[in-house]
Amino acid sequence: MKLLERLRAIDAEAKLIEHIGAMLGWDQETYMPSGAIDERADQLAFVETLSHQKKTSPEIGEILETLGSTSANPSGPESLPTVDRAYLRVMRRQFDQTNRIPAELVSEMAKATSLSQAAWIEARKNDDFRSFAPHLSRMLDFNKQIAACLDPSRKPYDVLLDQYEEGATEAQIAAVFGALRTDLVALLEKIRSRPQIDDAFLHHECPTSAQAAASAHFMNVLSYDLARGRLDVTAHPFTTTLGSSDVRITTRYVENYFPSSMFSTMHETGHALYELGIEPSPEYRRTSLAEASSMAIHESQSRLWENMVGRSLGFWIQHLASLKNMLAPVLNGIGLEDFYRAINKVQPSLIRTEADEVTYGLHVILRFELESRMISGDLPVSDLPTAWNEGMQRLLGVEPADDAHGCLQDIHWSMGSFGYFPSYALGNLYAAQWWDAMKAQGLDPKAAVERGDLGSILAWLRSNVHRSGAMHKPGELVERVTGAPLDPSHFVRYLNEKYAGVYGF
Amino acid sequence: MKLLERLRAIDAEAKLIEHIGAMLGWDQETYMPSGAIDERADQLAFVETLSHQKKTSPEIGEILETLGSTSANPSGPESLPTVDRAYLRVMRRQFDQTNRIPAELVSEMAKATSLSQAAWIEARKNDDFRSFAPHLSRMLDFNKQIAACLDPSRKPYDVLLDQYEEGATEAQIAAVFGALRTDLVALLEKIRSRPQIDDAFLHHECPTSAQAAASAHFMNVLSYDLARGRLDVTAHPFTTTLGSSDVRITTRYVENYFPSSMFSTMHETGHALYELGIEPSPEYRRTSLAEASSMAIHESQSRLWENMVGRSLGFWIQHLASLKNMLAPVLNGIGLEDFYRAINKVQPSLIRTEADEVTYGLHVILRFELESRMISGDLPVSDLPTAWNEGMQRLLGVEPADDAHGCLQDIHWSMGSFGYFPSYALGNLYAAQWWDAMKAQGLDPKAAVERGDLGSILAWLRSNVHRSGAMHKPGELVERVTGAPLDPSHFVRYLNEKYAGVYGF
Repeated sequence: MKLLERLRAIDAEAKLIEHIGAMLGWDQETYMPSGAIDERADQLAFVETLSHQKKTSPEIGEILETLGSTSANPSGPESLPTVDRAYLRVMRRQFDQTNRIPAELVSEMAKATSLSQAAWIEARKNDDFRSFAPHLSRMLDFNKQIAACLDPSRKPYDVLLDQYEEGATEAQIAAVFGALRTDLVALLEKIRSRPQIDDAFLHHECPTSAQAAASAHFMNVLSYDLARGRLDVTAHPFTTTLGSSDVRITTRYVENYFPSSMFSTMHETGHALYELGIEPSPEYRRTSLAEASSMAIHESQSRLWENMVGRSLGFWIQHLASLKNMLAPVLNGIGLEDFYRAINKVQPSLIRTEADEVTYGLHVILRFELESRMISGDLPVSDLPTAWNEGMQRLLGVEPADDAHGCLQDIHWSMGSFGYFPSYALGNLYAAQWWDAMKAQGLDPKAAVERGDLGSILAWLRSNVHRSGAMHKPGELVERVTGAPLDPSHFVRYLNEKYAGVYGF
Repeated sequence: MKLLERLRAIDAEAKLIEHIGAMLGWDQETYMPSGAIDERADQLAFVETLSHQKKTSPEIGEILETLGSTSANPSGPESLPTVDRAYLRVMRRQFDQTNRIPAELVSEMAKATSLSQAAWIEARKNDDFRSFAPHLSRMLDFNKQIAACLDPSRKPYDVLLDQYEEGATEAQIAAVFGALRTDLVALLEKIRSRPQIDDAFLHHECPTSAQAAASAHFMNVLSYDLARGRLDVTAHPFTTTLGSSDVRITTRYVENYFPSSMFSTMHETGHALYELGIEPSPEYRRTSLAEASSMAIHESQSRLWENMVGRSLGFWIQHLASLKNMLAPVLNGIGLEDFYRAINKVQPSLIRTEADEVTYGLHVILRFELESRMISGDLPVSDLPTAWNEGMQRLLGVEPADDAHGCLQDIHWSMGSFGYFPSYALGNLYAAQWWDAMKAQGLDPKAAVERGDLGSILAWLRSNVHRSGAMHKPGELVERVTGAPLDPSHFVRYLNEKYAGVYGF
């Protein structure tokens, strides 16, 4: 057991270094003076190197070997307690992921990525896909090399997916998304046949100070503990972990669309509540076991609080009066039904990050289809704009006038992230499955929201989803908690019921 | 020259680590959620250890040895350019200071210090000097041990002083302070014979937002560049360096005394301007040569801007109108003369940090006298309260009702800082000597302030004091720049002229 203790100590130091990096990153986005950017980059690179050294320290490899955890048998000897075996799996996976990619490849890719990002910014500004195309090719190439380093025996896209959603495969995601796509397109059809909702009053000018008050109010309503977190303002909202008791969120204020900051705050609060609720066991505090199960599980928490709670009728039965007070006179004269329908308006649009609950999944499905085909070589980079526009037409019935509002809109591919997009849609699916599991287990979350009892929902999520951290792979977690594998029908049923109400069909 | 380059590279990395520590410290004082305190302490300890390892790396010792810079001959071979020789001196000094103190002593003292600080907080709260006395004894003992490690051949207090003011000795400070004390006491006598100034209007309630506007205004007037710095709010104002282009200041707002934040902002801006102006030569950016010459030289910059500029009549000829606008209606009906006299009111008081320009030095002289006697063993710890009260009576004509407002008021001794206090008064002396040197060199700073030309003063300070950083010891710097050693008569003359005007004698 001395070896396990030693492993935890090295790991905890690696985590501490990561948290220092998160501190530097948070400051860079929030308060850092602009002139400090170059030095900050050096500081971040230094911390990154330190963190890499720690995570790849040969001692970790030796301990994992001695404890019998090999790549082939990652959970190690059967005799160990479950939590220790889970820890060995997590450490083995992390150690392999960092060690199998040669340092030169990492550093080459880092350089290429910074060029690629700069090229993407320019290309988007000038609507010039061709100038970005060679960078995209290079990013694809690096990703294939990385996949080959990590596991040459598997399909490259499967290996990439696995980095974000352990155990997932392209075939499984394709099956899930295939079903989902059909149902979303059908639902969208129904909605389109109904008169559109008027949400003009959401676009009235609303001062930042009023929006800030609303954000502060709702993160408190959702039980975000300000002794362990805080809210600041950045260009793009995010959640970042600076320590097990220091998880910070950010938002941005759009003067003529207050729902943006209000729902982004609930979204990030959902992420923060997850991070703050992880506690696999006292001795594993501040280790790699005290991390999220996957990106999609993370997204299930933000989406559950933002959409299933925050955009529900029951929630606004409780809170519309206080919101009207805080934002007065913006919502004067607006009734509950009007407000509820407006914040749930469905409108196919070009931009993923502005999409509603129904169309959001379709944006993600398109990206999954295109990136998996680019990785397999089935879709040449030069054909991406055409394929994108065709897909938008097919799935959403809209077509971008230019690539800046089309295949150049997301930062992900320019950063060399392939396999990440599916997490965004999987999050919605997991969220709906948790919701139904609560019901099946005797906690009616809808009724709880209606009576203002969000604490029961948080308590359920904490004990079922948060606490165990990375102990279970996402696929195992959903089976343990809900008794069934990931099943998109929960989400589809949720959407159909909700939007039948919203659009009256 | 390869060796020098290598030395700079190691040193630059040590600096980078220090800046990361400063980032963590800044955040702890400004925005960190309260629950993160324990983890932050671990993060700071980690960075501290890393920094210590870097600074004591044997490679530094080897390079210094090879380059011929030994403790006996610290400037190394005569053949090197001045800047390189200065650098070797600075590195040798730093290397010796870190290496000569055994790690066990450092760690023992760290533990004792945290106990001592906790005991001091309690003792001050309960006005219970006796409960703090054993901790004070221990801090004295540690300081004597440190002095013995650094240089057993010299008087312990000289060695301690030298840590903050390189080259200074107790005898030299005693001589300077002796003359200063006599003159300050005489000036105070004269002031006391005059009718007291009414400054009641400075104590009117003034909202934080108005004070914040004034702080922002004056730090801009003083040319603090917000692309390389920022102002935040903390319990105690400070300046901290997070990078050569990232020097941040803080202030605090006292609702019924706006001069507190206004002058503390000018004070910290003075510190920040110094840090931002250091640039001994391009290749020495981000090295130990790009640091302040001494704590007292640092204080000369904050005091010059706060007092000689910020509390001068000429400054308010330029700025009273805008201040009245920003704080309206607080200063309605107040004339220039009334305002100027009020912000320069002299009033012997019990607390150093609230002292005016005349009595401030007397507070510092008392601490110097007492701490040097405690280190030499001449003053037993148990006699400190009596000696303190007797000194206050003798120097300032006031006597504390309790030790909480007497010898327990400062944090320094509880932290084991002995030899630091003199810097506070020396700063005033250096400032006045710079001021007279400007005059002697054809720049009349008083006239410059009166016509709103602060840029000339900053330019002079940059090229004469800031730029060279740690190239010259403070004693050498003052001789180079002013042609004479440190001489308290400049400050005394400045005070006498100023207060003859303020009090009319």
